[in-house]
Amino acid sequence: MLVLGIAAAWSAAARAEDPLPSWHEGSAKAAILDFVDRVTDEDGADFVAAEARIATFDNDGTLWSEQPLYFQFLFAIDRLAELAPEHPEWREREPFKSALAGDIEDVFASGSEGLDELLAATHTGMTEAEFREIVRAWIETARHPRFDQPFDALVYQPMLELLDYLRGRGFKTFIVSGGGISFMRAWAPAAYGIPPERIIGSYFRTTFEMRGGKPVLMRLPETAFFQDKSEKPVGISRFIGRRPIAAFGNSDGDLQMLQWTMAGEGARFALLVHHTDDEREWAYDRESEVGRLDEALDEARAEGWTVVDMKRDWRVVYPFQSR
Amino acid sequence: MLVLGIAAAWSAAARAEDPLPSWHEGSAKAAILDFVDRVTDEDGADFVAAEARIATFDNDGTLWSEQPLYFQFLFAIDRLAELAPEHPEWREREPFKSALAGDIEDVFASGSEGLDELLAATHTGMTEAEFREIVRAWIETARHPRFDQPFDALVYQPMLELLDYLRGRGFKTFIVSGGGISFMRAWAPAAYGIPPERIIGSYFRTTFEMRGGKPVLMRLPETAFFQDKSEKPVGISRFIGRRPIAAFGNSDGDLQMLQWTMAGEGARFALLVHHTDDEREWAYDRESEVGRLDEALDEARAEGWTVVDMKRDWRVVYPFQSR
Repeated sequence: MLVLGIAAAWSAAARAEDPLPSWHEGSAKAAILDFVDRVTDEDGADFVAAEARIATFDNDGTLWSEQPLYFQFLFAIDRLAELAPEHPEWREREPFKSALAGDIEDVFASGSEGLDELLAATHTGMTEAEFREIVRAWIETARHPRFDQPFDALVYQPMLELLDYLRGRGFKTFIVSGGGISFMRAWAPAAYGIPPERIIGSYFRTTFEMRGGKPVLMRLPETAFFQDKSEKPVGISRFIGRRPIAAFGNSDGDLQMLQWTMAGEGARFALLVHHTDDEREWAYDRESEVGRLDEALDEARAEGWTVVDMKRDWRVVYPFQSR
Repeated sequence: MLVLGIAAAWSAAARAEDPLPSWHEGSAKAAILDFVDRVTDEDGADFVAAEARIATFDNDGTLWSEQPLYFQFLFAIDRLAELAPEHPEWREREPFKSALAGDIEDVFASGSEGLDELLAATHTGMTEAEFREIVRAWIETARHPRFDQPFDALVYQPMLELLDYLRGRGFKTFIVSGGGISFMRAWAPAAYGIPPERIIGSYFRTTFEMRGGKPVLMRLPETAFFQDKSEKPVGISRFIGRRPIAAFGNSDGDLQMLQWTMAGEGARFALLVHHTDDEREWAYDRESEVGRLDEALDEARAEGWTVVDMKRDWRVVYPFQSR
């Protein structure tokens, strides 16, 4: 009895100290813990000064879900519907017509030019402050079609723990996303505990203007930076100015960020979230229009990067599922 | 005697606790101390949470000197001389010819297009890592023509104290400069204690490429962002995502940053360094080609912003002068 009591107490203590309780024991969790221990061990060969402990995270599909469509596109479609009464011409013009009808596949068929037009029509023409309020109002009121939850409830509990764990070990955590920098900054600081200046994404051109004697920043319908694929290392260099030692993604859009991270000297870590759980979340990879994971999955296996099998590695997916 | 002894001890203690010992007592120093006390007093009406204590600093003429010419241009001219043997065509072409001859006024006469060409020829065509090494080597070996000191020795001791003081009171300090982001990040982190990701400046387009199986970031001869005047608030919004509560500059190029800062709600602080000391540094303002201070000086006086009179307000200018 005494031995059992001690064992139970020890096990409870171990659980209490587990920095990643939503991760099943397995190779992914072990690889994370091992890497962090190595780079924070002052006497070890792999030690990295806190200043250089930069970790970059993709957002869509890595920190929150991205199905049935990137949430920012769902925001754009909602906003399009709101603005439609003022734009009768949209009823006859693609991709507006399909977007208003909810035909996502036809919206995609309009290609990147069509998507750009859709984003410009819904994301520009207002000040930065006005846009932030529009996004905030949407995050507070809109609900995800499958889960009937606010979109910012569909963040991954295991990744929240990972962010906290890394910061507790002296890392600076950054988001490096193809999503809009201003769209994310409206809700992501509260969702992830990451301040605005560490949230990096795509952006439209903005211009400084005086309006009735007050300065404002106007959002113009011209993409200044689209931070996908090979533009992710460009964004990292521009905004962070240092190469990350750890990078986390889930799709081919993250491949160059992971390559860039791993090409540095010293201990390095690259991780891909593989969406394998169509019960609790979604299962998709090589054939998906959203968050395609094909080339990067091959490279991860060839290079020995860590691949998270969502179904097998995560005890819970969303925080609301653990309540 | 006892009273005098206590007074002397008290005065020594006060000096020891003075966070800005290189600032003479006066209205500028008092205004800084008062502002910081107000926004950090949890019980006061002007309290600002640490998270929102963003302070932005111009660099040239605000944190280090900029005469006889912005130091980055002196770097460009030095590098031009190094590269000249490979470019015989420069001997006949402006602004290269004048730059190689050291005719600064003629270089300026070539206008912003000429200056852009000069910068592109000396700042691009290599990887980001290679450029950083080039700048580092220059900072280590080049000497300022007047003071015979390394350029990064010409930082302002009172501003170093101010940066430290603000950080000690929970502020995040950022550089928001027209200077090159990669040029500054090569030396400014050590000079100011500001990490690369908080150093924001102008940049050339960069592109991600594979070179012999290794990813590199190549610097291309195309200005992607020139962060001067009304582009300073744009850069602040893009890189920081929050309006500063305090901004520090010295020229008309900083006017919009100060306007943007002061237009926010709650307690705000704007400061201009006025170069009035031609003995220890330089004296220039409305007529200067470099660091012109004209419109911003009028607005500072009209709006009651703090104007530092370098000659009167600073006990020392450079750290090496206080040794």
